[in-house]
Amino acid sequence: MNELIEQEITGIVSALMEDYDNDRYIDEVNLFQQPDKREIISIINGLMTLVYPGYYLDRTRKLYTVQSNLSVVAEDVMYRLNKQIGLALRFKEESLSQKDIDRSAQEMALAFFRKIPGIRAILETDLDAAFEGDPAAKHREEIILSSPGLLAITVHRLAHELFLLRVPLIPRIMTEHVHSLTGIDIHPGATIGKYFFIDHGTGIVIGETAQIGNHVKLYQGVTLGALTTRGGQALREVKRHPTIQDHVTIYAGASILGGATVIGTGSVIGGNAFITSSIPGGTRVSIKNQELFYKKGQGQEEVAEELDQGEEWYYVI
Amino acid sequence: MNELIEQEITGIVSALMEDYDNDRYIDEVNLFQQPDKREIISIINGLMTLVYPGYYLDRTRKLYTVQSNLSVVAEDVMYRLNKQIGLALRFKEESLSQKDIDRSAQEMALAFFRKIPGIRAILETDLDAAFEGDPAAKHREEIILSSPGLLAITVHRLAHELFLLRVPLIPRIMTEHVHSLTGIDIHPGATIGKYFFIDHGTGIVIGETAQIGNHVKLYQGVTLGALTTRGGQALREVKRHPTIQDHVTIYAGASILGGATVIGTGSVIGGNAFITSSIPGGTRVSIKNQELFYKKGQGQEEVAEELDQGEEWYYVI
Amino acid sequence: MNELIEQEITGIVSALMEDYDNDRYIDEVNLFQQPDKREIISIINGLMTLVYPGYYLDRTRKLYTVQSNLSVVAEDVMYRLNKQIGLALRFKEESLSQKDIDRSAQEMALAFFRKIPGIRAILETDLDAAFEGDPAAKHREEIILSSPGLLAITVHRLAHELFLLRVPLIPRIMTEHVHSLTGIDIHPGATIGKYFFIDHGTGIVIGETAQIGNHVKLYQGVTLGALTTRGGQALREVKRHPTIQDHVTIYAGASILGGATVIGTGSVIGGNAFITSSIPGGTRVSIKNQELFYKKGQGQEEVAEELDQGEEWYYVI
Repeated sequence: MNELIEQEITGIVSALMEDYDNDRYIDEVNLFQQPDKREIISIINGLMTLVYPGYYLDRTRKLYTVQSNLSVVAEDVMYRLNKQIGLALRFKEESLSQKDIDRSAQEMALAFFRKIPGIRAILETDLDAAFEGDPAAKHREEIILSSPGLLAITVHRLAHELFLLRVPLIPRIMTEHVHSLTGIDIHPGATIGKYFFIDHGTGIVIGETAQIGNHVKLYQGVTLGALTTRGGQALREVKRHPTIQDHVTIYAGASILGGATVIGTGSVIGGNAFITSSIPGGTRVSIKNQELFYKKGQGQEEVAEELDQGEEWYYVI
Repeated sequence: MNELIEQEITGIVSALMEDYDNDRYIDEVNLFQQPDKREIISIINGLMTLVYPGYYLDRTRKLYTVQSNLSVVAEDVMYRLNKQIGLALRFKEESLSQKDIDRSAQEMALAFFRKIPGIRAILETDLDAAFEGDPAAKHREEIILSSPGLLAITVHRLAHELFLLRVPLIPRIMTEHVHSLTGIDIHPGATIGKYFFIDHGTGIVIGETAQIGNHVKLYQGVTLGALTTRGGQALREVKRHPTIQDHVTIYAGASILGGATVIGTGSVIGGNAFITSSIPGGTRVSIKNQELFYKKGQGQEEVAEELDQGEEWYYVI
Repeated sequence: MNELIEQEITGIVSALMEDYDNDRYIDEVNLFQQPDKREIISIINGLMTLVYPGYYLDRTRKLYTVQSNLSVVAEDVMYRLNKQIGLALRFKEESLSQKDIDRSAQEMALAFFRKIPGIRAILETDLDAAFEGDPAAKHREEIILSSPGLLAITVHRLAHELFLLRVPLIPRIMTEHVHSLTGIDIHPGATIGKYFFIDHGTGIVIGETAQIGNHVKLYQGVTLGALTTRGGQALREVKRHPTIQDHVTIYAGASILGGATVIGTGSVIGGNAFITSSIPGGTRVSIKNQELFYKKGQGQEEVAEELDQGEEWYYVI
């Protein structure tokens, strides 16, 4: 590498370093003062081990018994979560003293861990619902080892407890991580009942203020969303996502929108339906048959006569 | 950390350990008795190296020649797959003796490896189809190195062979792993012909009993699904997903549903079409133009006069 | 393992090795002659650190100051990118001498790094737009640490500069990697203005020749696509994706298709709209209310009388 290029590289690096002096959000360089995304992902993996020990435990650990192995994982995850909560609180609650932050973080971490057996009891109902609902699933173990829906609801239920404890930043980082893995985007604020089943899952969006009862099934591409976000930050805390009562099934691609929209108990919403007002209980809703155009291909004589012979059509990628 | 908190932590960990005594599926703690998801993902990566050696081979390995390097990978992957198949069989076929399981696992692993050259021959046709179909692709190498569609069909073709050999658990873990990476959810049971092309891919769902011919193209968000899953586990083994014949193109967001639905040779299904009955060969199907409402914005004089002036409209997130 | 099985394994491995002699694209075994996907992903992570230093910097590095730490990352990433560009050029520009390739790669890497401060200035506007647009976001830091939309547009803006410099292979590998992480598929060729906001994001597809102005918002499942890809490789370089002018919002699931389609300044496109021709500025477009069928469930007396009582309906997965 000749000297000229070396000078140029030095100049480029200097310009980049100066760019960090602009005092914008993206110019933050102070480490150790905010939660660490990588560490939070590692904590999620530790929590998955505690929730489904036989399926997620790292087999390279060679401790004496499974129980002592799991105790070590539990204490380790609790310690690390405590630390991340402290960083999140210090970052967002600038008026608190370090001592208050330490105490709050400790209390939040302990309160969260006390909830884990209760969360596990609900997850067993989700596993039942997933097995009952999916004829392609051969065993419950297959679901634990492979279902994106069970993974998403597991991480949601954990993140939701941290959300209820008012832990900043960490719950959303957790759910966005599982969104990345599954294509299922559940805001940690959403309230979801027992026996919840998601099939396929890619493209599902469940908004922050959605409320979902027990025995609800969702298929891929379902949105439980807001009617408008024009208000932006002014809409914070307002209920803007729908309520889904017990025993509702919502098929693929349906959108249910609006904070006042209620889907009543036992209703079934058909694929691709677009719902912006309430549906009473026990209703089965389906989209009317689309009007479709059919056109015979060139040289293809076998096109059925009974099809419409509309002339217009188009392709879409 | 003071003593009180230490006691509390001990209590929380004990409660968690007792929670594993409930004898539910999620309470399984026996390791080494079922397939290991991390190991299966590592096997997938080894298989990708064997299928596309120049693109996936780990460059940190410094063996003498590429051929000897690949031979080592092949023997290593075969050995590890054999072991995982054994665990899957032991887990699900409790009536078999350990000797029978060992022999079956060995035979299945060998039978699978014998299929790899044939699978590679078909994948070369998929690569051709991907290059021909995508004007944004500049080189075939770009497709191998970056296309989610080629990745998904590659792992599917491998997992499908294991599915045909009746290996438990592992095929679904493989396809759900690639679902996580690509947003493309193909059940390992689906039958797919040569020259298969998926573009973009996110949101595609192909059900277990779908049958797809040669030269078929699918775009993002296409579902080849079932009409209902109300039957749950009772529907297992029933053909509930459609048949797509040769040379069919299905554009983005279309849904083709039902086990008796057949899309005939050479047909083209337009974007967002919702098809629940058979379409004869050589037909081009498109949705009728949607009725849309248009409303002029405030202070925007340039709205074209020819647009409808409907008053109702709504936003959707 | 008995001798027979050992022979069989040897035979299977030999057959696989012979399969690489077929001289197809997939038979390429020459390493070190093309870009390395793993290395490019590592370069992306390095670039994320340079763009958002306080959020992505590896905390296990213990260098003296943050600035010197970042300088080391910058020089390291520049060196490695230079090398990958060289491999990409050698692979695709066979007529160039090694010396010319080395010089071009060096120039491209330097030119790219000079652009980074400018890219960062635009990303700060994207961060503003994300915070303003999302009532569920509590802090800007939460967005940097968790938003898939910001991640996708960040990697796009970096890859787009390499695309403009005519670097082969690498830009698409970069955007497909972030597609895998986020479900958002933006071709590196797409032109995108400031204050760009993607919410949720899963299923979004933005084609190579799309042109997007400033202050544009997109929700999940939006396609900016081509009307047809029947032309395949013959369509390369033709503008086949739409133009979106400034201050346009496109809600979930909408498709805007065709190279001549222009969405005018300030327009709002409602959810699921399917647009294949231009929309003048200041227009709000929404789909007409779907005709839906409603059917009373058995034993559910509370179904509202005002609902249609159509008899046909169907489920969809």
